[in-house]
Amino acid sequence: MGSWPGLSRDFEQLLEAELNPGKMAGYPVWEAARYSLLGGGKRVRPRLLVAACELAASPPRAALPFAAALEMIHTYSLIHDDLPAMDDDDFRRGQASCHKAFGEATAILAGDLLLNRACELMIRVCLENPEGPCLKAMGILMEASGGVGMILGQDRDLALERSPEKEVELADVLWMAELKTSRLIRAALLMGGWLADLDQEVLDLLGTMGTSLGLAFQIKDDILDCVSSRDTLGKTPLKDQGAGKKTFVTLAGLESARTLLDEKENQVLRILDQLEAKGLKTGPLAGLVAYLTERNY
Amino acid sequence: MGSWPGLSRDFEQLLEAELNPGKMAGYPVWEAARYSLLGGGKRVRPRLLVAACELAASPPRAALPFAAALEMIHTYSLIHDDLPAMDDDDFRRGQASCHKAFGEATAILAGDLLLNRACELMIRVCLENPEGPCLKAMGILMEASGGVGMILGQDRDLALERSPEKEVELADVLWMAELKTSRLIRAALLMGGWLADLDQEVLDLLGTMGTSLGLAFQIKDDILDCVSSRDTLGKTPLKDQGAGKKTFVTLAGLESARTLLDEKENQVLRILDQLEAKGLKTGPLAGLVAYLTERNY
Repeated sequence: MGSWPGLSRDFEQLLEAELNPGKMAGYPVWEAARYSLLGGGKRVRPRLLVAACELAASPPRAALPFAAALEMIHTYSLIHDDLPAMDDDDFRRGQASCHKAFGEATAILAGDLLLNRACELMIRVCLENPEGPCLKAMGILMEASGGVGMILGQDRDLALERSPEKEVELADVLWMAELKTSRLIRAALLMGGWLADLDQEVLDLLGTMGTSLGLAFQIKDDILDCVSSRDTLGKTPLKDQGAGKKTFVTLAGLESARTLLDEKENQVLRILDQLEAKGLKTGPLAGLVAYLTERNY
Repeated sequence: MGSWPGLSRDFEQLLEAELNPGKMAGYPVWEAARYSLLGGGKRVRPRLLVAACELAASPPRAALPFAAALEMIHTYSLIHDDLPAMDDDDFRRGQASCHKAFGEATAILAGDLLLNRACELMIRVCLENPEGPCLKAMGILMEASGGVGMILGQDRDLALERSPEKEVELADVLWMAELKTSRLIRAALLMGGWLADLDQEVLDLLGTMGTSLGLAFQIKDDILDCVSSRDTLGKTPLKDQGAGKKTFVTLAGLESARTLLDEKENQVLRILDQLEAKGLKTGPLAGLVAYLTERNY
């Protein structure tokens, strides 16, 4: 397995502090939000944001709060997706899912809280840095997570789930995965690029890389769902087939999914080469890509 | 009944346009969001925002998009509060509630979409107006709607509902109503004041007025729940008592609730006088207050 480039302890401390303003931690909605946000997770998206920042010689200070906001939004989406009315998942990140631990009402509110809190945090940083690209970075994230991005992806996922298998095409699954998974991963790289003040050509490369990396990530998830145990995965395996989910594996089969995964991963590696040829500091990003390529959970 | 100062047709057109970007209207999550946002509602909060702007000689152009964002956030909170896991309400704004019309999964997503979309809209306006108070106004709204504001209010509402009546005090209901209802109404007035560049003394008055007006609004809601029919109310009446809800009426009784309502309304009227004594254009705001005081739905 590839080594996992560390995200500073500052990051986890920031998450912890953001989730206990004015000693709020005792209220159920805050407890539930803390449980889901602080209880593990690979922190893939914030690490990608920071790694994109590190392409520049001196990464900006605002990287961490934006990385934290991104992780909050990702976590809220998991909480809502796991609800009984949605994917009805009992396990997440190796523990009971939020609604199993706190009840549905509190889980819905905890998701709302995390989305709202992410915005509060970013606005604070924007107010402290009125010049510069902070507001632009916030705009990138909110567009990616919204109704023309991640939320539409979940809408499409639900729609495909209800469609008979023979009416669903691989292109439908590709679009759904691009919305549901790639948009946030692409946003991570683009936000990092903007915050580090990288030029437009690099931003374009990061955008393309994010889409491919997100698809590779989702295809790998679908493959792992098919071949893993719950202990490795931290969530319920073989869930997709039972639930009528349309995934790369259920639609195209395991071998074709692996071929598509290779293709997407090669696109990512080619862009890494292009970034390196431009003299950027690709070490951290390459380390992350290696880790994501080789992960088995 | 007091006359209802009109909100321009531009406002409804703006809502309509914001809820159909890139011809998205056909997707279930967008249809559900449109159904709830465009299907009626008294637009109290956006009208208050605009009326606060109108205290100044020339209200700013940014008022309408912020009023729209505010209404989106209010509407998302209604959609989520109505869910079976929360208040389980079948009617809202005179029609079936969102989850009754579109199913729970789509209703949860539609709520998420409206919260996210409100932020997208405000960020766009902030990017177009980098100088000035737009970002500050956005910060006021997001703090009011978040985990130390409206969301905590719903958390408290759920907690009180589960508590035995004899363990709940009027102060608990007051705090819950201040969080759940007043914070957004207070934000409406403060955002208007900030956008219109009013001075700190006026902002302080608007903040105090918002808290009292919000409490008056909630006490009136509780009273109307007790004495109205569904046709007048547009939602299920007598819901509070059956559901174990703790309201001003269930805690203090109808007469004490009416006394408290008078007290809050008088506070609001006194502040209106103070604003008028400062030479501000209080006509629109006074008209709204008169309407809210006299409403019977």
